[in-house]
Amino acid sequence: MLKAGIIGATGYTGLALISTLISHPDVTISLITSNTYKGKKISDIFPLLKGRFEVTLEPTDDNHAGKCDVYFLCLPHGTSMDSAKRLFNGKSLVVDLSADFRFEDVQIYESSYIPHTAKELIPLAVFGLPEIYRDKVKGAKLIGNPGCYPTSAILGLYPLLKAGLLAGDIFIDSKSGVSGAGREAKIGSLFCEVSEGFRPYGVGVHRHEPEIQKEVDKFSNLKIMFVPHLLPMSRGILTTIYSKLKEPLKTKDALDVYRNTYHGEPFVRIMDEGLYPDTRFVRFSNYIDIGLKSFDDGRIVIMSAIDNLVKGASGQAIQNMNIALGLEETTALTALPQYP
Amino acid sequence: MLKAGIIGATGYTGLALISTLISHPDVTISLITSNTYKGKKISDIFPLLKGRFEVTLEPTDDNHAGKCDVYFLCLPHGTSMDSAKRLFNGKSLVVDLSADFRFEDVQIYESSYIPHTAKELIPLAVFGLPEIYRDKVKGAKLIGNPGCYPTSAILGLYPLLKAGLLAGDIFIDSKSGVSGAGREAKIGSLFCEVSEGFRPYGVGVHRHEPEIQKEVDKFSNLKIMFVPHLLPMSRGILTTIYSKLKEPLKTKDALDVYRNTYHGEPFVRIMDEGLYPDTRFVRFSNYIDIGLKSFDDGRIVIMSAIDNLVKGASGQAIQNMNIALGLEETTALTALPQYP
Amino acid sequence: MLKAGIIGATGYTGLALISTLISHPDVTISLITSNTYKGKKISDIFPLLKGRFEVTLEPTDDNHAGKCDVYFLCLPHGTSMDSAKRLFNGKSLVVDLSADFRFEDVQIYESSYIPHTAKELIPLAVFGLPEIYRDKVKGAKLIGNPGCYPTSAILGLYPLLKAGLLAGDIFIDSKSGVSGAGREAKIGSLFCEVSEGFRPYGVGVHRHEPEIQKEVDKFSNLKIMFVPHLLPMSRGILTTIYSKLKEPLKTKDALDVYRNTYHGEPFVRIMDEGLYPDTRFVRFSNYIDIGLKSFDDGRIVIMSAIDNLVKGASGQAIQNMNIALGLEETTALTALPQYP
Amino acid sequence: MLKAGIIGATGYTGLALISTLISHPDVTISLITSNTYKGKKISDIFPLLKGRFEVTLEPTDDNHAGKCDVYFLCLPHGTSMDSAKRLFNGKSLVVDLSADFRFEDVQIYESSYIPHTAKELIPLAVFGLPEIYRDKVKGAKLIGNPGCYPTSAILGLYPLLKAGLLAGDIFIDSKSGVSGAGREAKIGSLFCEVSEGFRPYGVGVHRHEPEIQKEVDKFSNLKIMFVPHLLPMSRGILTTIYSKLKEPLKTKDALDVYRNTYHGEPFVRIMDEGLYPDTRFVRFSNYIDIGLKSFDDGRIVIMSAIDNLVKGASGQAIQNMNIALGLEETTALTALPQYP
Repeated sequence: MLKAGIIGATGYTGLALISTLISHPDVTISLITSNTYKGKKISDIFPLLKGRFEVTLEPTDDNHAGKCDVYFLCLPHGTSMDSAKRLFNGKSLVVDLSADFRFEDVQIYESSYIPHTAKELIPLAVFGLPEIYRDKVKGAKLIGNPGCYPTSAILGLYPLLKAGLLAGDIFIDSKSGVSGAGREAKIGSLFCEVSEGFRPYGVGVHRHEPEIQKEVDKFSNLKIMFVPHLLPMSRGILTTIYSKLKEPLKTKDALDVYRNTYHGEPFVRIMDEGLYPDTRFVRFSNYIDIGLKSFDDGRIVIMSAIDNLVKGASGQAIQNMNIALGLEETTALTALPQYP
Repeated sequence: MLKAGIIGATGYTGLALISTLISHPDVTISLITSNTYKGKKISDIFPLLKGRFEVTLEPTDDNHAGKCDVYFLCLPHGTSMDSAKRLFNGKSLVVDLSADFRFEDVQIYESSYIPHTAKELIPLAVFGLPEIYRDKVKGAKLIGNPGCYPTSAILGLYPLLKAGLLAGDIFIDSKSGVSGAGREAKIGSLFCEVSEGFRPYGVGVHRHEPEIQKEVDKFSNLKIMFVPHLLPMSRGILTTIYSKLKEPLKTKDALDVYRNTYHGEPFVRIMDEGLYPDTRFVRFSNYIDIGLKSFDDGRIVIMSAIDNLVKGASGQAIQNMNIALGLEETTALTALPQYP
Repeated sequence: MLKAGIIGATGYTGLALISTLISHPDVTISLITSNTYKGKKISDIFPLLKGRFEVTLEPTDDNHAGKCDVYFLCLPHGTSMDSAKRLFNGKSLVVDLSADFRFEDVQIYESSYIPHTAKELIPLAVFGLPEIYRDKVKGAKLIGNPGCYPTSAILGLYPLLKAGLLAGDIFIDSKSGVSGAGREAKIGSLFCEVSEGFRPYGVGVHRHEPEIQKEVDKFSNLKIMFVPHLLPMSRGILTTIYSKLKEPLKTKDALDVYRNTYHGEPFVRIMDEGLYPDTRFVRFSNYIDIGLKSFDDGRIVIMSAIDNLVKGASGQAIQNMNIALGLEETTALTALPQYP
Repeated sequence: MLKAGIIGATGYTGLALISTLISHPDVTISLITSNTYKGKKISDIFPLLKGRFEVTLEPTDDNHAGKCDVYFLCLPHGTSMDSAKRLFNGKSLVVDLSADFRFEDVQIYESSYIPHTAKELIPLAVFGLPEIYRDKVKGAKLIGNPGCYPTSAILGLYPLLKAGLLAGDIFIDSKSGVSGAGREAKIGSLFCEVSEGFRPYGVGVHRHEPEIQKEVDKFSNLKIMFVPHLLPMSRGILTTIYSKLKEPLKTKDALDVYRNTYHGEPFVRIMDEGLYPDTRFVRFSNYIDIGLKSFDDGRIVIMSAIDNLVKGASGQAIQNMNIALGLEETTALTALPQYP
């Protein structure tokens, strides 16, 4: 059994990792940490774990290097790189769920976040979007797990970008459930501030915009605009993307581009013509559902849906781990979406 | 006191009309109808009215012509035009909340809806968007009250269209609460099918697209794409519009275009730079809140929020009535938004 | 115009007071305070007030005595009594929405809360439940506005208690929306912690239990048990009360006891036999709806519904102000419930 | 592999059965039926199944006898008994999720429901509450799967009933999510009618009351009162039970009665003193969480939480199947609760 450590285990991504890894036949969770709740049992924080997983939280700040075969870092941006520095030894796998190792170009990172304190690790890091970078993930020892919005947007665009079919500006209108804001006590995430309301935020300044743009830049010189919105629900991201094709394609043919590109991908489902994704139908699963419609004049709209805590965070992290460690990629990730 | 009749009073727009008109000092509700619930008291359908408004419902199909000074038609598209034909007499005001009298060009109507059976009335009808057509609404006897999505989209675009500042395709990404689907028993509107989910629908085929396009056509030859989505909440529409300016404008200057265009408008609020609308902040009110951000390269995103049952339906209908009948435009419509 | 001050105006009860008083013809809000947000405009905290009420917040800790004809204290328990001491001068009316002046017996207060630092004011305070204590409220200068749960429970029990008809233990099962927990950043009030969940809390130790018990004690020696639960919604309390009658009464006759007791009460609605209250039907209004069913063997279940922020807090505070100042009791409080 | 048939597969319990059985190592779903959707693929009804389970629905009314080793009947009360008659052959196992085989005494059934048309099968049926009737379930061929409310109430009361410790009337205050009303298009289950509201229903007349009472009658002559309420959420039941002990017990000791009674039960979790159940912490799992608090004078409050679609329906049905067929009882039922 491989030993897994979850660094910062008391947030929603930590919980999602525990919930999934607990059924992984090749991995056992041997370490969970939290500075806030150290010394407490995780089942006191999340009573749903009672009787199933009652491990005690160790301090995040302790030296845990060498204890585990794989570490999942569920820490805030900025804190994570320090932890990575302490844990990275070229043998254990480090999967970082923060933004700290998602950018090959440190300047882009630093202009959106803060000065990077582990620059030496950046060249070793792989951007963990398996559908695009599976080969690099294999055998990697440091993985920057993509952001939730970028996962939904980049996978929604990739087939057209790769095939060089896009010509116009790309407008990305994303909507996320509140769990994306984490398990932090803040006014804006209160039930009374979220329920029965809907709003855009971070218009033109959200830090996921450069994360998406840098991937688009690899295939084109198109500019994206990214506008995230907050949904009155807990889980799920739906991204609606507007752009223009170089040459008009029938919807059917555009869908074929997606089907071909994602052929054999275990977690990508391309919807039939006339059907569109719904966050309900991916909830609690590692799927990304993608649908689209194109128009005679070349305009196209692409829609993708993920569970932000699974394919947008913890599920993808485990998918990356499976690949990196040579395990079957879908292990522990085959749960069906759950609804209602 | 003017006498008002609500034809089809047991849906959400009927209820919203009752709730508002009940406090109108110049109008009394003298007639409410329903074929489904005729003979019952409206307070048996909506117990919140108990002790306040316990009028009995008359059959919608009866001849009610000449009884009231103003009729509000809250009937399905297609049924409404028949009712209008019976009630229109050139003296009473008819405000139709369906789509039947929103289109000057009957062909556009018929290609989206059904054959029109009251064509002779179409030239008499005014598209009741007061911020654009106030002068025509004054003294009108037949008003086609705009759709909820079109209200949010057209008012969001109007200042730029009117000033001829837009150059690119217009992508309109709208999100609506479930009350927009009406008070009908259908699977898709069940709590379990809506809550904790989010989905696009009617992509490229929604009947509000031609309603928006026909207004855009009056100012430009730009093409819109309209994608509505269903929000897991009851009330509110937020519309995010993406396009391109002919010449780049600073956000501040673009906002000034809006402030100038809507100067003196009692129900339009232009937000400060860096602030964006939220459906919470217009809920239960007749406001439309509009914010925007523009970019150096001319791209612009405009966001508007309304309560779909108020400014998007019943509130706007009463605003139209006030104008048409020469009453103070804001009468009975000054309630503050309500939150949480 | 009478001048009103809202001390601690940036919570949900403060907002509800502003929203209601703004339409009060005899009162103007001349002072709003907040230590946290002092110097800011209230419309920056609550953007829904933009264009309607943009007053600047003064520090709560300043000396505001003598400035206003009526003060509403929306402060935490414990802080409120200090504020009351500074503001009370025997001329201005002080309506305290905290628990600090709800208990005639300071020992009960102190055993549930903290040592009382304004004991000298307690004999001057009136428990502001107008349906029971209207005569005392008239002309009062210090009013302890009842808690939200106690309002729903006491008014649900009062007719039977007053008539001496109850014989058995009283089990009070209350369910409240999240706004009852205030506008404070805490984990337990996050959307993700509240939505799609339901839980009891404070079982047998909630501080509203002694507030209800002390009123029951005035009529009987019956013991109550009070169990509050947290609902996944913003507004509304529904209380279900189980007990036993000394002699069985038909439901119809028990309802008559309620109708007689509350005859002429503007904000109490007794439901018809077979109908039961629903928080939806009192939302945003000052109503309390009460229904009941009795059984052949004397068991009885009584259900009441209020909006916790209106009849359970700010609406009742204004009702108390209206009575105390000799204004028409229902002024500014006649808004219909709002739904959906 | 055993073959399972789901008769009436397009409701929420049908979907929950599919979602769970799909991961059962000993069972394969070989038949799913629906009269409404016959001929369609189940993945067209529930798109979340796309790529995973795309079986075509056969007509419910066809003769499916002998095809499967186990049938789950997810049909309305009344319809189910006819189906059972056709399918029961003494060899296949029939698990009926309706009320038709829950009552040993047909008169109780008929006074709450309708005339029974398969009376000959009633003596063969076992009330499938494994924690009480496991021995009878073993080898049974016809199982009446308990109702959702009764499961939560009976398991909450059983330890005290069995030990003969209760003395007073039993007041059962239950609250359920909307999925309990099924996937039927009805006004009362619409998002706009449920969200942001809370209401009791069926007070004193709900058909789950006799189902609970008949179990209580086996241990005592105490009378229950059952009041269900509708929660603004999809899944979960929380039941709060008020009663009186013959002799006061400390909370600790009362909890020990529960721990002893349910010792070794894989799906019952007794909470620590001072902690209470929350539907969030059992959601999507087969757990029932039980907490309680007792008082010096013998009064006691017991709280239980289940997922109404799992332990309250499909999960328990599979648990019964596992027991009846001699499989490991927890197979396919070990999924952790899911939250947020």
